[in-house]
Amino acid sequence: MTLDTNEMCAKTTISASESFKQNCMWLNGEEVPFEENARLMRCLEGVQRLALANGDIKFPQSWKLHIASCNNFPTAAGLASSAAGYACLVYTLARLYELPITEELTTIARQGSGSACRSLHGGFVHWRKGELEDGTDSIAVPVVPWTHWPNMHMLILVVNDARKKTGSTKGMQLAVETSTLIQQRAKQVVPQRIKELTQAIHQRDFKAFAEITMRESNQLHAIALDTYPPCVYMNDVSHAISNFVHDFNEAAGELLAAYTFDAGPNACLYVLAEHVPRLLAAVQLAFPNDCEQSVEYLKGIPVPQLAQHLNGVGDAALAHVNPKNLLKYIIHTKVGKGPYQLSDDQSLLIDGLPLPK
Amino acid sequence: MTLDTNEMCAKTTISASESFKQNCMWLNGEEVPFEENARLMRCLEGVQRLALANGDIKFPQSWKLHIASCNNFPTAAGLASSAAGYACLVYTLARLYELPITEELTTIARQGSGSACRSLHGGFVHWRKGELEDGTDSIAVPVVPWTHWPNMHMLILVVNDARKKTGSTKGMQLAVETSTLIQQRAKQVVPQRIKELTQAIHQRDFKAFAEITMRESNQLHAIALDTYPPCVYMNDVSHAISNFVHDFNEAAGELLAAYTFDAGPNACLYVLAEHVPRLLAAVQLAFPNDCEQSVEYLKGIPVPQLAQHLNGVGDAALAHVNPKNLLKYIIHTKVGKGPYQLSDDQSLLIDGLPLPK
Repeated sequence: MTLDTNEMCAKTTISASESFKQNCMWLNGEEVPFEENARLMRCLEGVQRLALANGDIKFPQSWKLHIASCNNFPTAAGLASSAAGYACLVYTLARLYELPITEELTTIARQGSGSACRSLHGGFVHWRKGELEDGTDSIAVPVVPWTHWPNMHMLILVVNDARKKTGSTKGMQLAVETSTLIQQRAKQVVPQRIKELTQAIHQRDFKAFAEITMRESNQLHAIALDTYPPCVYMNDVSHAISNFVHDFNEAAGELLAAYTFDAGPNACLYVLAEHVPRLLAAVQLAFPNDCEQSVEYLKGIPVPQLAQHLNGVGDAALAHVNPKNLLKYIIHTKVGKGPYQLSDDQSLLIDGLPLPK
Repeated sequence: MTLDTNEMCAKTTISASESFKQNCMWLNGEEVPFEENARLMRCLEGVQRLALANGDIKFPQSWKLHIASCNNFPTAAGLASSAAGYACLVYTLARLYELPITEELTTIARQGSGSACRSLHGGFVHWRKGELEDGTDSIAVPVVPWTHWPNMHMLILVVNDARKKTGSTKGMQLAVETSTLIQQRAKQVVPQRIKELTQAIHQRDFKAFAEITMRESNQLHAIALDTYPPCVYMNDVSHAISNFVHDFNEAAGELLAAYTFDAGPNACLYVLAEHVPRLLAAVQLAFPNDCEQSVEYLKGIPVPQLAQHLNGVGDAALAHVNPKNLLKYIIHTKVGKGPYQLSDDQSLLIDGLPLPK
């Protein structure tokens, strides 16, 4: 699910000019290496090749580029900022070379950061694994646009973690090499679940969506644990959140929320818009925090009816109350429309000058 | 691996008498229900049936029993005290009815507590899953006696844990019903690993033994996580211990230690006797504790050369130092010879009186 750019986004401006002496890139205002960045170069060369193949080049390939990019992501939160960044980069390169968003373009974004291929589309997107050795058929295809299920919201619970990290790319490579369960997952479980999950999305069946999502998240981390040496991304707080969601759903008598964990301890909770106040109030009760009144603690879409839920009896009595301050902050966001072009006055580069604003 | 009774054991005395009015049982000095305890009754009736089938009954079946049992296990540590208790009970019943330790007897112990069947033997024991619907061929068979690998030692790291517990029996039933990976594990992985592990034990190949053991432990917990809702037995401290063991082995340049985790957060570290001082010194450095000089903290077999290892450079520099007091205490033990009969003066019942000592 591509998230709404209102809450979390990357922005990129790219200029090409005969007058630029060299390729330059600025990330959040700091100059960063360009030609030495293999991922960046793969994306740039991929888009240029595509433009050449289309035979309609707007400017000479020899012109150098200035790229300025920034994101409004909370720093170091493990919230897939590189996926957003590379999707935004490839989308912007495609605008520069006047290329449409094609399946081939998603394979180029994938070479910057795997999951970046999905973020070229809005709504719900399926990253197909493909069958070919060279990976050219490993593409991202839209399932439904964001308008199909506009009330699909998400609470991101950012937790503290001080443990040694395993990168997700290294972890997955190691899993493929050493897990004796991953073949069963890849051959049997995933194809079946993709079918069921796609159907649940088409039918806006939250209950089915929620159960498949939670089982999938758990199995991803089970495979990581079956890797040798084991990769552990979730921590005790993550598991406390998972327990909380199961308790919350049990108290509600139906599946109103679903968790998913990526290659880190933070939880993404899927919840329909109408249940956000109830879920958030329960989160606040189960995970008390000294900062819970602060705007820095509750980021993103405001939740107006929260106070009455907090004051009600609700799910409070049923939830296990965890120690204070296990969460760093919470972001409330929703399904989004994917990347789009901003007006020129929002450019990150100063007109005619090789410097970012 | 059956542990040495010198460090951790259960003791049971059983008397049968025409004069006893009713069946009674005392556990650690407290009277506990007898006829209402289904597990106890299954074991008693199983042994009586076996004695009848043998046709050599030493006293009328109508005589009532007095059973006194105690164990020296640290309380509530999740250290399989019920497996030890039921193995000891069935062993003692077998002595009372003068029955040998047969495969059939292990199926009776299994009905008290699953893993109790293994503890009727010493050394290394294989609990066969069996093929029959009625479970009568799910028996425990000795692999090698303790004398085959007498220098196989174990450090049990008991960790603190305040989280909600899932019982191991309930957890395993749920895994069978809901995990989509458990069939792959049961059909492919476990049979192959049992073969390899048995061979490693026969050849006293610690390296192979260690790797299979760690992979097995990880996969057991992976399956628990793939259960729906997920079962989580390891906590952050457990994973810190697992990381420590991998770091320790890497620093040593060979596999000198192996972890295994049961249905709880405590770690059992396999290590050969000659490497205990080095491993224990590294544990002390990686998991500093305010009580580390106390005899209550370091239980079991004394480790005389520990001081020189602690003072040396050793593996200290290579190990990640965790926060203080993550461990409750450490038990140093080793492979044991299994249950045996004590002398009469060690009886837990007062001669001729229906009361425990």
